[in-house]
Amino acid sequence: MNKKLWGGRFSTRTDPLVEQYTSSIAVDYRLARYDVEGSIAHAKMLGRCRIISAAESRTLVGALRRILQRIAAGRWKPDPSAEDIHTQIQQALQRLVGPVAKKLHTARSRNDQVCLDVRLYCRDAVERLTRAIRAAQSSLVAFGWANRQVIIPGYTHLQRAQPVLLAHHLLAYVEMLQRDADRLTGARARIDVLPLGSGALAGTSLPIDRAYVAKLLHFARVSANSMDAVSDRDFALELLAVLSSLAVHLSRLAEDLILWTTEEFGILALDDAVATGSSLMPQKKNPDVLELIRGQAGLIIGRETAFLTMLKGLPLSYNRDMQWDKRLLFEAVEESLSALEVLARLLRRVAVQHGQLPRLMASDALCATDLAEYLVARGVAFAEAHAAVGRLVAYAEGRRRRLGQLRVHELQRFSPRFDRAALALLNPATSVARKRSAGSTNPRLVHAALVRWQRKLKNQ
Amino acid sequence: MNKKLWGGRFSTRTDPLVEQYTSSIAVDYRLARYDVEGSIAHAKMLGRCRIISAAESRTLVGALRRILQRIAAGRWKPDPSAEDIHTQIQQALQRLVGPVAKKLHTARSRNDQVCLDVRLYCRDAVERLTRAIRAAQSSLVAFGWANRQVIIPGYTHLQRAQPVLLAHHLLAYVEMLQRDADRLTGARARIDVLPLGSGALAGTSLPIDRAYVAKLLHFARVSANSMDAVSDRDFALELLAVLSSLAVHLSRLAEDLILWTTEEFGILALDDAVATGSSLMPQKKNPDVLELIRGQAGLIIGRETAFLTMLKGLPLSYNRDMQWDKRLLFEAVEESLSALEVLARLLRRVAVQHGQLPRLMASDALCATDLAEYLVARGVAFAEAHAAVGRLVAYAEGRRRRLGQLRVHELQRFSPRFDRAALALLNPATSVARKRSAGSTNPRLVHAALVRWQRKLKNQ
Amino acid sequence: MNKKLWGGRFSTRTDPLVEQYTSSIAVDYRLARYDVEGSIAHAKMLGRCRIISAAESRTLVGALRRILQRIAAGRWKPDPSAEDIHTQIQQALQRLVGPVAKKLHTARSRNDQVCLDVRLYCRDAVERLTRAIRAAQSSLVAFGWANRQVIIPGYTHLQRAQPVLLAHHLLAYVEMLQRDADRLTGARARIDVLPLGSGALAGTSLPIDRAYVAKLLHFARVSANSMDAVSDRDFALELLAVLSSLAVHLSRLAEDLILWTTEEFGILALDDAVATGSSLMPQKKNPDVLELIRGQAGLIIGRETAFLTMLKGLPLSYNRDMQWDKRLLFEAVEESLSALEVLARLLRRVAVQHGQLPRLMASDALCATDLAEYLVARGVAFAEAHAAVGRLVAYAEGRRRRLGQLRVHELQRFSPRFDRAALALLNPATSVARKRSAGSTNPRLVHAALVRWQRKLKNQ
Amino acid sequence: MNKKLWGGRFSTRTDPLVEQYTSSIAVDYRLARYDVEGSIAHAKMLGRCRIISAAESRTLVGALRRILQRIAAGRWKPDPSAEDIHTQIQQALQRLVGPVAKKLHTARSRNDQVCLDVRLYCRDAVERLTRAIRAAQSSLVAFGWANRQVIIPGYTHLQRAQPVLLAHHLLAYVEMLQRDADRLTGARARIDVLPLGSGALAGTSLPIDRAYVAKLLHFARVSANSMDAVSDRDFALELLAVLSSLAVHLSRLAEDLILWTTEEFGILALDDAVATGSSLMPQKKNPDVLELIRGQAGLIIGRETAFLTMLKGLPLSYNRDMQWDKRLLFEAVEESLSALEVLARLLRRVAVQHGQLPRLMASDALCATDLAEYLVARGVAFAEAHAAVGRLVAYAEGRRRRLGQLRVHELQRFSPRFDRAALALLNPATSVARKRSAGSTNPRLVHAALVRWQRKLKNQ
Repeated sequence: MNKKLWGGRFSTRTDPLVEQYTSSIAVDYRLARYDVEGSIAHAKMLGRCRIISAAESRTLVGALRRILQRIAAGRWKPDPSAEDIHTQIQQALQRLVGPVAKKLHTARSRNDQVCLDVRLYCRDAVERLTRAIRAAQSSLVAFGWANRQVIIPGYTHLQRAQPVLLAHHLLAYVEMLQRDADRLTGARARIDVLPLGSGALAGTSLPIDRAYVAKLLHFARVSANSMDAVSDRDFALELLAVLSSLAVHLSRLAEDLILWTTEEFGILALDDAVATGSSLMPQKKNPDVLELIRGQAGLIIGRETAFLTMLKGLPLSYNRDMQWDKRLLFEAVEESLSALEVLARLLRRVAVQHGQLPRLMASDALCATDLAEYLVARGVAFAEAHAAVGRLVAYAEGRRRRLGQLRVHELQRFSPRFDRAALALLNPATSVARKRSAGSTNPRLVHAALVRWQRKLKNQ
Repeated sequence: MNKKLWGGRFSTRTDPLVEQYTSSIAVDYRLARYDVEGSIAHAKMLGRCRIISAAESRTLVGALRRILQRIAAGRWKPDPSAEDIHTQIQQALQRLVGPVAKKLHTARSRNDQVCLDVRLYCRDAVERLTRAIRAAQSSLVAFGWANRQVIIPGYTHLQRAQPVLLAHHLLAYVEMLQRDADRLTGARARIDVLPLGSGALAGTSLPIDRAYVAKLLHFARVSANSMDAVSDRDFALELLAVLSSLAVHLSRLAEDLILWTTEEFGILALDDAVATGSSLMPQKKNPDVLELIRGQAGLIIGRETAFLTMLKGLPLSYNRDMQWDKRLLFEAVEESLSALEVLARLLRRVAVQHGQLPRLMASDALCATDLAEYLVARGVAFAEAHAAVGRLVAYAEGRRRRLGQLRVHELQRFSPRFDRAALALLNPATSVARKRSAGSTNPRLVHAALVRWQRKLKNQ
Repeated sequence: MNKKLWGGRFSTRTDPLVEQYTSSIAVDYRLARYDVEGSIAHAKMLGRCRIISAAESRTLVGALRRILQRIAAGRWKPDPSAEDIHTQIQQALQRLVGPVAKKLHTARSRNDQVCLDVRLYCRDAVERLTRAIRAAQSSLVAFGWANRQVIIPGYTHLQRAQPVLLAHHLLAYVEMLQRDADRLTGARARIDVLPLGSGALAGTSLPIDRAYVAKLLHFARVSANSMDAVSDRDFALELLAVLSSLAVHLSRLAEDLILWTTEEFGILALDDAVATGSSLMPQKKNPDVLELIRGQAGLIIGRETAFLTMLKGLPLSYNRDMQWDKRLLFEAVEESLSALEVLARLLRRVAVQHGQLPRLMASDALCATDLAEYLVARGVAFAEAHAAVGRLVAYAEGRRRRLGQLRVHELQRFSPRFDRAALALLNPATSVARKRSAGSTNPRLVHAALVRWQRKLKNQ
Repeated sequence: MNKKLWGGRFSTRTDPLVEQYTSSIAVDYRLARYDVEGSIAHAKMLGRCRIISAAESRTLVGALRRILQRIAAGRWKPDPSAEDIHTQIQQALQRLVGPVAKKLHTARSRNDQVCLDVRLYCRDAVERLTRAIRAAQSSLVAFGWANRQVIIPGYTHLQRAQPVLLAHHLLAYVEMLQRDADRLTGARARIDVLPLGSGALAGTSLPIDRAYVAKLLHFARVSANSMDAVSDRDFALELLAVLSSLAVHLSRLAEDLILWTTEEFGILALDDAVATGSSLMPQKKNPDVLELIRGQAGLIIGRETAFLTMLKGLPLSYNRDMQWDKRLLFEAVEESLSALEVLARLLRRVAVQHGQLPRLMASDALCATDLAEYLVARGVAFAEAHAAVGRLVAYAEGRRRRLGQLRVHELQRFSPRFDRAALALLNPATSVARKRSAGSTNPRLVHAALVRWQRKLKNQ
């Protein structure tokens, strides 16, 4: 039995090295389920349109369903000798139903078939990723809620800037992840197009019904141009672009958590269960998980780069270069899911080191901006207020005193509008409480945001 | 006059090398207009909320409008000695209105200010890009319409596959570009968020009205989290991701056109006006424009990689690394616009080489699939039909004859279902006419698609 | 038995999800052999320096050798429950020799151990890659030699430019590959540094002898700075950079071969054994192997990007992000070897389509530059000669005549220096034969280059 | 006067949009000097080989020298109306010497000419970069020397690991930069090849003397294959790969310095002259320079990606896509030089915050490895020693005591081999002093390394 889906015109056996090099089964076995689902819809349509007989259609559909059950039950193994997953399934079908199996590939090319499979995969991936993002968001919100009173230094340039609520900081990541989820929703609309029926590139002369197949497979639309349909990988590329963005977000969160669990920052401690040790240094407790997440951003960015570079400059329509799409896509999806999952777990095993916070909040220069805004509220032009407080900070530093240790008359050297009340501002709790702008770190607003997210994440 | 927006606490003059290295004016001067528009809205709000007096607000707004006019009139030059565009505009304002200028920066940080500017830039860029994409689509449709009868070989693997209409091939690119336009629309929703009012990272204690500013500047929403707002560059990243996709599409179109204008393919000829010559070889006429477009994909992909890598692993909130965002963004937008514009122009200066087409269509193996589908319609299982025609092709090749030169009895050696009508299929015009699936290269369907696109592009 | 190399200070069991996420055995099992070789040298040194007893050293070395034999014999399987390959080997050792196994990791950290393993891997990889490059070069030279008389159009901008020998074109790729080989040699010098003995980051207080270990493992030098040694992945990065360059070269060669095997160019034909077919179109014979090679460039470039991005911004010294190095490195090396191997094979299964060459060489504008150089030799300034021939070409084109069909008096309208001899130049064989500059396509020079390469490749 | 170096065969004027899009003068004006130097050598050779007369040669050389002087004196401005720098110089020459200028481009194409120019540029760039690297190394060594007694925590995973000398940490970067310098030297050998004389792709029939030109321009070799010579950009690509590696090194150094200048780490303080402030927060002093250097790694990595992607899949020989090479190359070289220069400056303006060091070194778990090695020296198997000390650390942590506060009998609960001397090890100075392995942080070894580098950097 010729194991290939082609070969009539070929007189020499394919070189084994070539067979091995062009084989994709080690990667595309993940498409098994989607391939069979697509074939079931195709076989139904062929019967309905009388391209094959109703009985033939039923036979094919029945056998394909048995294969699908095997796949679902985990009793399906990639066959390394098959050229690809489509060939392997075709062979299994042939073993089950004999010659009628040869009718399944009617009015279909592997070009449109594989496009369909990858789209079905992507549709699933979007759902799984969306759920995993939501789980990570929930962990962030839960961690923020449990520590909703905690104030930490907010940083810009990694220099202490202004006091913020820990929960506010965490919610920034909830927002980022939400944008990724929103982009996934956008991408889904462009995934939701049936390519099957485009043939190899030109369509078919057989009387197929593409709309019916789309309905069976729950696609919103059929593709409008057959040449585009078989060479389009934009939907996968868009998914990768979202995963790059997600990976960058996770890398930034990982960086923050790595910093916070250093002895120097000391804001958080990792539970032993989510830390690792050193083979040489007995005292070490390392945030390996977070470092791996941070580093993984490199891998995912690299995959998107690879995908773009692979596509660059290809003529229409299908070219085999595109076979690499699946490897890049599958690995990026799987890695993203792992990273989200392990991060959500880790966030449930970190604890705020309350004892360390006073040390971190001690430098009351964190509240210097509050002083400047205080002057503004008393009529000083902002640029002048900024300059006055800047000089005040330099003055205190030069004397190795904290701002709160200065006397009112010393403050007044820098601006006559200072008074005793100004000194009361030099307090992180006061600082956050006085914030009033929408989106600020004001505790009331942050509390409301936490509640809003809890509700939103529950309802999805 | 201290030219910086900061400096109160600093005792030493900044090192000139540092000033030069950190200066961004050579890049961000492009933000001038957006910066002033944002400041006008901010100044109005400060007055309305009584953070500054109504008179002060009017003074500031008036002066800013004069600056805006200068910018609009092209009478604004970047000042290389300014740290950045914000500083230069602040200085200009100070020259116009004196000390009251110092009140403008109240309740604002450069962190949220520059985010606003870049969002305004991106909003504009989306519009300009959308228009440019539409223009390129129109050129493709017009070219397809003018040559709507032309049949060319469709390729897969750059091997002749099946006859297709030239217009069908061109419409594949119209579809691709439309996906880019759709993604731009998606990106626009995420651009459409006002960051101003987030302060440096924590919000402000001054009674600002962010919703009012959003209304003045036509933003759909205000940002929900101040720390996220000042460190978020996702909107620019998403724009770059779309531009990468667009660049890949243009590189593929360029590749097709480069191939088609070779002597070997000979499908198209470039007009002298859009071709270039060689300094050594007098006979050369080169498609430099198309090669530059193809190569530019590398640049734009590189910028997206750069952007992602720059963001990777940054802790919250703002870090100066992000200054590089603008350079990457501006250049990618400008290059994309140039490429679209020059391509649209070029498409109006290419001509089909009708004389060459017969040679290209001569190999009637292009219609082999039609033979196989013919057998299927007569009850042969597709896999058998495929194998039979494959052997038939090998048979003809071995005898150096074209399929159309074979006799019916020869065909029947490969399948008894062949008859005289089969030989009539070996004709490109018949081949495309017999296609009937939705999205196929059937001339009626392609005609309808051309009309649909003409209408759609006109109405936008 | 605690399966980890650390854990004394840990009180909670590691979360299974964390164990799974941080496990690297699925990737680093490829290091097994190198890990054991390194351990043998280390154990010898520990004994020689009396850090462990001579008997202990012998016991360890003996057991490690047995493990090495198992690996060499292919009887070693990755144990998915081990954290990494180092742990798995440590466990195997413990099973073989009991408690004394616990002495092996003395004065060693996994940080310097894994660096050693990867360097040993890279050293091997350089050798294997160099051999594979040489094999590909040999295939190119052999193919060129077999067709050393064949003249084809040389292209710039994919437009026919001047006649060149096919062998000259192929030798261009031999040169490119040689640069990659040279860069590998350069990289090897930087791989050739022993990191072992650097401890986790600071060195050790135990009296080890690094020079002795370097000698046993044939390293040219020991690393000079322990912190650098454990965080340095430059040697792997440099290897990846060479592989990117190599991948680009192969992608260009693949592109040329894909073009040459189109019906339009028709210079080459692939043997059936190295081509593939279509599941729909019976007549197709596709160069899938070449397309996969071309596309693979994207993957390898993506890996280098990933590697760089992963390293970017990491503080000293070791960070777990670096674990991803191995995956990127191993896959890039393996893919490069596959591509070289399959390409060398393919080059032995292509044939020049001699019958097609006359058609390709027919357009005698290919020799226009020869006409211009002829005028220069007769005293015309080159710029004038170029312009004259340019106009001549346009004149002939306008009349749809080939240059060779023009009369001398017509030529003389464009330059009085033309005479009958000029017309004799319009011949590809004459064109290449008249070339005389070093490195040109002159047949004598190309012949000499082929011979030189044959000799060089044989002697290596 | 036709401003183009081609055009004879063209009948229509080039579209202005096309002229603008294909113009490269805005980028390649940087090649002016190299272009003229190359032309001088070419003109000399043309005369010597009697392709032009001796008098013509002298005229051309004389005029070119005058142009060179203008360039050297900074009196040369890019002419935006010229197609490229070669055209502009050709025009200037024509203005100076009239018709004889038309003879300069004999036996030369812009293809080989621009290759020459870029190689000359790269040769210079290698020198400038090598000097700049050396200057940065000198700053590191000087800073290390000035603080050669300072002990800081060494980190792995950003967790405190073992005490190290600050100078040891800095020398790790000196090693990294040295590898970049070494790779530059390697790259130089591949730059050092004369492409001129390769013509457009095939060489020339005129009797040129390439070896003479190589000698005049100090090239080690002439290129061996004309088709390779005009399409080879490997030398530039290799340079970019080194710059990526360099950028990663600088980004890591920047990260370390950013961390060290946080209030949390507090190891270093930046002088005001190399720090910047905030427009909102008066107290801020930000390490913008370091963040820009860190972020720049993204840009440079992006450029290498762009370069590779641009080259991927291009057929031989020259294609205009390659024009983008210069932009990528020039910008990467210039940015790298800036980053090195500003970093060297900054390193002279940072100060160790000696007052903060005791706090950082307080946690004596930094010396836990010394305890384990102590046990090893007393006969305990390393794995047992590691476990014992690990439990000891957990014990002390559980009681919130430092190791140094434990009593000997408490230590002995974990290993009977502990004695009073063990407690004396819990001291950073002792820890570094006891290190003895080559490349370790032992002060004597670090001192020797500093001296060795001082000498080496002086002598270069």
